[in-house]
Amino acid sequence: MTTSPPATRPTGEQAAREQDVVERAVASFEDCPDPRLRQVLQSLTRHLHEFVREVRLSEREWGDAIAFLTAAGHITNESRQEFILLSDVLGLSTQTVAVNNEAHRNATESTQLGSFFVDHSPEVAPGGDITGGAQGRRCWVEGTVTDTDGAPVSGARIEVWQADADGFYDVQYPDGRVACRGHLYSGPDGRYAFWGLRPTPYPIPTDGPVGVMLEMVGRSPVRAAHLHFLITAPGHRPLVTHVLDADDPQLKVGDPFFGVKDSLVRVFEEQSAQAPTPDGRDLNGADWTRVRFDPVLAPQS
Amino acid sequence: MTTSPPATRPTGEQAAREQDVVERAVASFEDCPDPRLRQVLQSLTRHLHEFVREVRLSEREWGDAIAFLTAAGHITNESRQEFILLSDVLGLSTQTVAVNNEAHRNATESTQLGSFFVDHSPEVAPGGDITGGAQGRRCWVEGTVTDTDGAPVSGARIEVWQADADGFYDVQYPDGRVACRGHLYSGPDGRYAFWGLRPTPYPIPTDGPVGVMLEMVGRSPVRAAHLHFLITAPGHRPLVTHVLDADDPQLKVGDPFFGVKDSLVRVFEEQSAQAPTPDGRDLNGADWTRVRFDPVLAPQS
Repeated sequence: MTTSPPATRPTGEQAAREQDVVERAVASFEDCPDPRLRQVLQSLTRHLHEFVREVRLSEREWGDAIAFLTAAGHITNESRQEFILLSDVLGLSTQTVAVNNEAHRNATESTQLGSFFVDHSPEVAPGGDITGGAQGRRCWVEGTVTDTDGAPVSGARIEVWQADADGFYDVQYPDGRVACRGHLYSGPDGRYAFWGLRPTPYPIPTDGPVGVMLEMVGRSPVRAAHLHFLITAPGHRPLVTHVLDADDPQLKVGDPFFGVKDSLVRVFEEQSAQAPTPDGRDLNGADWTRVRFDPVLAPQS
Repeated sequence: MTTSPPATRPTGEQAAREQDVVERAVASFEDCPDPRLRQVLQSLTRHLHEFVREVRLSEREWGDAIAFLTAAGHITNESRQEFILLSDVLGLSTQTVAVNNEAHRNATESTQLGSFFVDHSPEVAPGGDITGGAQGRRCWVEGTVTDTDGAPVSGARIEVWQADADGFYDVQYPDGRVACRGHLYSGPDGRYAFWGLRPTPYPIPTDGPVGVMLEMVGRSPVRAAHLHFLITAPGHRPLVTHVLDADDPQLKVGDPFFGVKDSLVRVFEEQSAQAPTPDGRDLNGADWTRVRFDPVLAPQS
């Protein structure tokens, strides 16, 4: 990876003046009664000043940044969050998840919860169907929930949600119906299975300033195909993660949210319509697919 | 100045995961066709990730930041700019000005243009009055514009603007009248003089998220009293600066925009009503004040 060389940094009186601004700005938070807030704001201030000084930000570029944030603010409403999208495409959402879900032995890696999780999904029985009749290739998802020692975790609540074959989550449907969303519980042996869909890549909203930026820098707005999981069980750290499709071309293009973790890529095995389904279900002559995902829960810290 | 100790930074697999997110995010801009945009976005990305990792930003704090930016976006309109205010109170506006107006020998230091500059101010004759009848202690402002060798600069356009004694600029008046704003030209000897007001400290808007933040961290929202100048002359770098009042208690409290530069502090000499005015003007028995400010222009680069 090459990066542009930093612009020349000044020395002497000019450097002293710039440093003086940093010191005054950092010191302005010194009397903050909340030590954590002080720490966060002082660090943010230092790093943003370092950015401005490193790139020698022009006054015009500063104005462009103000205009960008203003446009992001004005497109943001109850159903659209451009600031989260900005955090996402800079990798800051994924970084925050990484920082807050530290690696623990062989525990499954965490990813973002994303914008499409909603509480109160329908419960489905073991081996049940979460698709709600949505369009897409049916997929048998199965696995075993274990702890980091490999012991099965029974009674884990497994919440799953995903987009349909057109790339839409049910909350984006105009008619309010529930689809491709549900929860179930692992059995006494930690096993679980359900019918979902083979996930589909879908674009993030591109009609705001974040979309303009992605276009300007030549980045794809298409998210790698993924199937979301939120798994909770007493005594274990809640796990928010997703399963990625090894055949998805977006894995090479790159996910705009940096949600691709090699450890979460699984092979989705295509099955012909003639292949018997695991539970004997009749899929009306449609091909189907299957995938195995064995979540490993870290202990509650 | 003390700062909070940084939180413990992880090592091993956790550090590798965090670094991987940084590298992917930085690399995502590698194909940007505009090398300058690539440089700016890669630097911003690196510094923001470093911030998140350094303070171990919690997911709740991340959510607070999103809510802050959202509130800033929603209060921003044609006459209110909370993102500029945010840049101001973090010192980023002053830093950008510093970066773009490099120190040059004895040239006068630059400051922010601020939100209250407007084009097409009225011209006043040498020694004229810019106050437009605004309330405040009359102040005779005089000086000589020179280059960095001390040679007078004649015909320099000197634009001046300031708040009235209540802390309001004319653009904040409901009736649209022009006051405390004007321009004049330096004479053949580089000299200029005009009647303005002794500047008054005034608070920045505090009814938005930036005001809430200043309150939480215990910072004053009151700007140090200042009188704005924008001086332009052929062959010289435009100078945006302001003059500060040595008697202003805000100099010790601290300016929320970090606009206090020691080199720009001047003594405003109080004059009794009995003291003859420099131009023989009758101030109707009011006390007045006077200040000298000799701007030094850098050469055009």
